[in-house]
Amino acid sequence: MSYSELQIEGRNPVIEAFRSGKTVDRLYVLKGTADAPVQTILKQAKKQGTVINFVEKERLDQLSQTKHHQGVIAITAAYSYSTVDDILKKAQERGEDPFLILADGIEDPHNLGAIIRTANLAGAHGVIIPRRRAVGLTAVVAKASAGALNYTPVAKVTNLAALIDELKKKGIWFVCADMEGESMYRQNLTGPIGLVVGNEGSGVGKLIREKCDYTASIPMKGDIDSLNASAAAAVLMYEIVRQRLEGKKIKADGGN
Amino acid sequence: MSYSELQIEGRNPVIEAFRSGKTVDRLYVLKGTADAPVQTILKQAKKQGTVINFVEKERLDQLSQTKHHQGVIAITAAYSYSTVDDILKKAQERGEDPFLILADGIEDPHNLGAIIRTANLAGAHGVIIPRRRAVGLTAVVAKASAGALNYTPVAKVTNLAALIDELKKKGIWFVCADMEGESMYRQNLTGPIGLVVGNEGSGVGKLIREKCDYTASIPMKGDIDSLNASAAAAVLMYEIVRQRLEGKKIKADGGN
Repeated sequence: MSYSELQIEGRNPVIEAFRSGKTVDRLYVLKGTADAPVQTILKQAKKQGTVINFVEKERLDQLSQTKHHQGVIAITAAYSYSTVDDILKKAQERGEDPFLILADGIEDPHNLGAIIRTANLAGAHGVIIPRRRAVGLTAVVAKASAGALNYTPVAKVTNLAALIDELKKKGIWFVCADMEGESMYRQNLTGPIGLVVGNEGSGVGKLIREKCDYTASIPMKGDIDSLNASAAAAVLMYEIVRQRLEGKKIKADGGN
Repeated sequence: MSYSELQIEGRNPVIEAFRSGKTVDRLYVLKGTADAPVQTILKQAKKQGTVINFVEKERLDQLSQTKHHQGVIAITAAYSYSTVDDILKKAQERGEDPFLILADGIEDPHNLGAIIRTANLAGAHGVIIPRRRAVGLTAVVAKASAGALNYTPVAKVTNLAALIDELKKKGIWFVCADMEGESMYRQNLTGPIGLVVGNEGSGVGKLIREKCDYTASIPMKGDIDSLNASAAAAVLMYEIVRQRLEGKKIKADGGN
């Protein structure tokens, strides 16, 4: 699958994409356009929750691959999204405590793909991303996930903070990756858990961080600021894996 | 620093690069050329251990940014290399057991950069890469390292296996990342250690794996094959960090 297949340009092709039920992640519309086809597109986009960007002609020309964008370029999802319920169901089916990854505003598609890849191998049941200020499931994400996107469900939600509130009521604990937080080695990361990892620049947003039950930091000895977002996510996910394995061992030893 | 600054084209510029002491990682020479300037370049390249590729004209034309390559293109290192002794000295200065990362044939510059970045933050004293079949310290690696390349020394050696033999005599233990190996949680990863991580496709080479004292695997529960090379390296490095911290705690508790 080439990246260009996922960028749809021109009024009719974009209307057709919405009609066929494709998930449009992002829409670029020429500033000031207000004719009927564009109105139809905008209505569909709002219904679907697509992120809409009104941009100058230069920006559209630059983005355009066909050079016939007619004032509209849509970026569609390479893969389809699941729901949070699907993810919880997966945990239930496996008879495991839910293990969710919430990726707050990851903008780099390679990082999101790598997070989905690690989530798959660490045994997480799914990845949840916000609708805004984040990359969607593009072809680059799919490629970086090394096939994990075919197995690990990814859900997209409008409001991560509200979702955390909702899932807390279902008994899931939320731990926030936070470089100022308590060392991950000193936190109890067993049981039903949602790991919240932040974006490359600014970490997890304040509102979401405050919603979390506790924070976990990765001990750092170095000279530079921070780990790459996907490396940090991998290290945290595997601390959860380790504690879950240890927990099982303790339980098993206790039972003998 | 732009990537193009690191590609030097044409006979005199390449000779000049060698004369000025620049590290040339890779040299592309037109097949069948044997005149005096090219002979000079080849002599210098052999002296420095540069990887030399004899290629067809089409390949050179394709690589060329200036379109005046005159049959020679050199790729120089964006950063200068350290020596293994520098790395060991760093450990000694800090009064710590050596903690080395050996990256066996990492070809993706983003992965090498991410490994150097994590190595810095995990408190490793340096990264060692082989001269052949691996990416060098290009501008892309430097960027992906997020500044770590300014602090964490990287040494380039001709023969990783021979280096392992040599360092074993100095009391360093080598652990090989190997998905078929014993779980990293069950290995003792404290003390002077060299962690060997393999390349994206085939893992650590057989000869090098056999030189290692033991193997360590990352438990995997997922549907896909393997972690990204830099994510796997991060998880393993942090298991070493954890065990070192735990070891200290045990020692401290024992002392009280």
